Amino acid sequence: MKANIVLLPGDGIGPEIVLQGQRVLDAIATKFNHQFTYQSCLIGGIAIDQTGDPLPQPTIDACLASDAVLLGAVGGPKWDDPSAKTRPEVGLLKIRKELGLFANLRPIQTFPELVGASPLRREIIEGTDILFFRELTGGIYFGPSGRETIDGVEHAMATMVYSVPEVERVVRLAAEAARGRDGRLTSVDKANVLEPSRLWRQVAERVVREEFPDVKYDVVLVDAMAMHLISRPKDFDVVVTSNMFGDILTDEASMLPGSLGMLPSASIGADGPGLYEPIHGSAPDIAGKGIANPLATILACAMLLRHSLKLEDEAAAIEAAVRKVLAAGHRTPDIAAGEASIGTEAMGDEVLKVLA
Amino acid sequence: MKANIVLLPGDGIGPEIVLQGQRVLDAIATKFNHQFTYQSCLIGGIAIDQTGDPLPQPTIDACLASDAVLLGAVGGPKWDDPSAKTRPEVGLLKIRKELGLFANLRPIQTFPELVGASPLRREIIEGTDILFFRELTGGIYFGPSGRETIDGVEHAMATMVYSVPEVERVVRLAAEAARGRDGRLTSVDKANVLEPSRLWRQVAERVVREEFPDVKYDVVLVDAMAMHLISRPKDFDVVVTSNMFGDILTDEASMLPGSLGMLPSASIGADGPGLYEPIHGSAPDIAGKGIANPLATILACAMLLRHSLKLEDEAAAIEAAVRKVLAAGHRTPDIAAGEASIGTEAMGDEVLKVLA
Ligand SMILES: [Mg+2]
Ligand SMILES: [Mg+2]
Repeated sequence: MKANIVLLPGDGIGPEIVLQGQRVLDAIATKFNHQFTYQSCLIGGIAIDQTGDPLPQPTIDACLASDAVLLGAVGGPKWDDPSAKTRPEVGLLKIRKELGLFANLRPIQTFPELVGASPLRREIIEGTDILFFRELTGGIYFGPSGRETIDGVEHAMATMVYSVPEVERVVRLAAEAARGRDGRLTSVDKANVLEPSRLWRQVAERVVREEFPDVKYDVVLVDAMAMHLISRPKDFDVVVTSNMFGDILTDEASMLPGSLGMLPSASIGADGPGLYEPIHGSAPDIAGKGIANPLATILACAMLLRHSLKLEDEAAAIEAAVRKVLAAGHRTPDIAAGEASIGTEAMGDEVLKVLA
Repeated sequence: MKANIVLLPGDGIGPEIVLQGQRVLDAIATKFNHQFTYQSCLIGGIAIDQTGDPLPQPTIDACLASDAVLLGAVGGPKWDDPSAKTRPEVGLLKIRKELGLFANLRPIQTFPELVGASPLRREIIEGTDILFFRELTGGIYFGPSGRETIDGVEHAMATMVYSVPEVERVVRLAAEAARGRDGRLTSVDKANVLEPSRLWRQVAERVVREEFPDVKYDVVLVDAMAMHLISRPKDFDVVVTSNMFGDILTDEASMLPGSLGMLPSASIGADGPGLYEPIHGSAPDIAGKGIANPLATILACAMLLRHSLKLEDEAAAIEAAVRKVLAAGHRTPDIAAGEASIGTEAMGDEVLKVLA
């Protein structure tokens, strides 16, 4: 297949890790006979420096015309001045909006070799493999909010709102993903108390019953889920939830594997290009040193192939290569636990060797 | 001192564990020369059975006239019929409201002997000692909510509301508690996104700056806190947060020690009696068997002495006794990890022996 991929290296270690992602995508193109073309565009702090805008219009246009977008990271102390006109993170929020990305995917996977880095005991964490779908454009982060003084007392309010189609579309994506995995979907809400959660539960149950009768479905309350993630994380397959609950639960879950440098994420919409990135930040302290871990970005490339290009075998090949590289003992400093380590490019080389 | 304590044994194992709590309170009265009188009242399923009401008026009157209330647990399969007119849990929600209890206290403590039961690795969990203050009567669980059809599309909404005095009063209680502990207070919010959280942060910072300048204060975002609880739980002393965030975070935190049978909780107001209880439920499966762990209830009695009767030495004596009993190897089945165990009353006896 032919695919047109936009690269948004961004700031800090972004360019170094995106470069390794591109090398891996190229290797996949060669191996599986695809033709990937790339266009590199500005986002974040570097875009502010060069154009005054964290998301210049040419970047938006290129992304909209692409099949998928690979992002490094944005931000750093250079652009942290609170009196600045704009911030690098604004570019990230804006590109998600421009691309209509309403679902954030966060796989929480463990690698046998790295289980010792988890804060959880081995027998609890080992084998954990969860794919979260977080609704990204609705809920309390985007509802009406404000302040009001009533009888001389200041009040502040924010409104959690969900509509039927907003729930339908993210539940559909999650249920579809469950079909390609272990076939189980857990919807997380707070339907015992919150009206938007009651709507969420009704809609989710209907969508799964009517459109995905083959998917094994259950519901869990958000506070119970916060417990289960610690006590029995391996019991879950795909988890779908609303924006704020997803924000809290996916961050909680990101601690479980014990190695943030390994975790990719994706933001996708109904159609059009998805955005793929590592969940870690721009790590300005190690930028340019050639020691950043490129594996989260490389695993984000696997997600790009799976979710945007529907190339499941190619995605699985990358994931298998990463597992093999870890099993062979190769480590960047962040996952080396003080033992011998290799750099960003050498780690990319190892993945390429397996894929060759 | 003289104190008038209402006992609400409730359902399931409630009567068995409350009895052990009462025995320990009696031992404290003898040892420290106090005079505690008790009145036992109906709540929950047993109250429905005997009066048709999960919270009969005589119970409300007795609680309002008391210095403190010790609760066992409510509920069980007998009262789970969804078509029933009322449920045992309604009694619990109603008594909290009648007593004006706006702060829920949840200590998360580890005992060296039980650290092996934690899902976390020993070096991460050992030494954890957090006291959560969760705001209990405001926020999104109690704001305006409803459904609306806009252009043929059904929407559901719920409103998170906080007022200045609601934040002030719970932050004051938490800061006061920090003074009696390690002197550190962490306020958890989502002020980067939510307007009620911005109000919360402004008010909390002002209250601590003006009234508790001696307390070391910091703020953490709710999603970051969900991470920190797993990766570095021992860094926190007192944590104060809003209703829903507290609901999620205290449930997450309750998993950390690995033994729910050890965790007490309290609900307190500005003045008037507080309500003290174990966080575990009525455990109908083991009710009447004499094997329930009474230690959470006994530790709830320590909280009752500390927070409602201001008897710090007496509270500390109970907590020291529980630690001593555990160190001596005494275990109820739930914390015995398959080893030899003793029953509810025998565990009470061991605590009494240390206090004698
Ligand atoms: Mg977050
Ligand atoms: Mg809860």
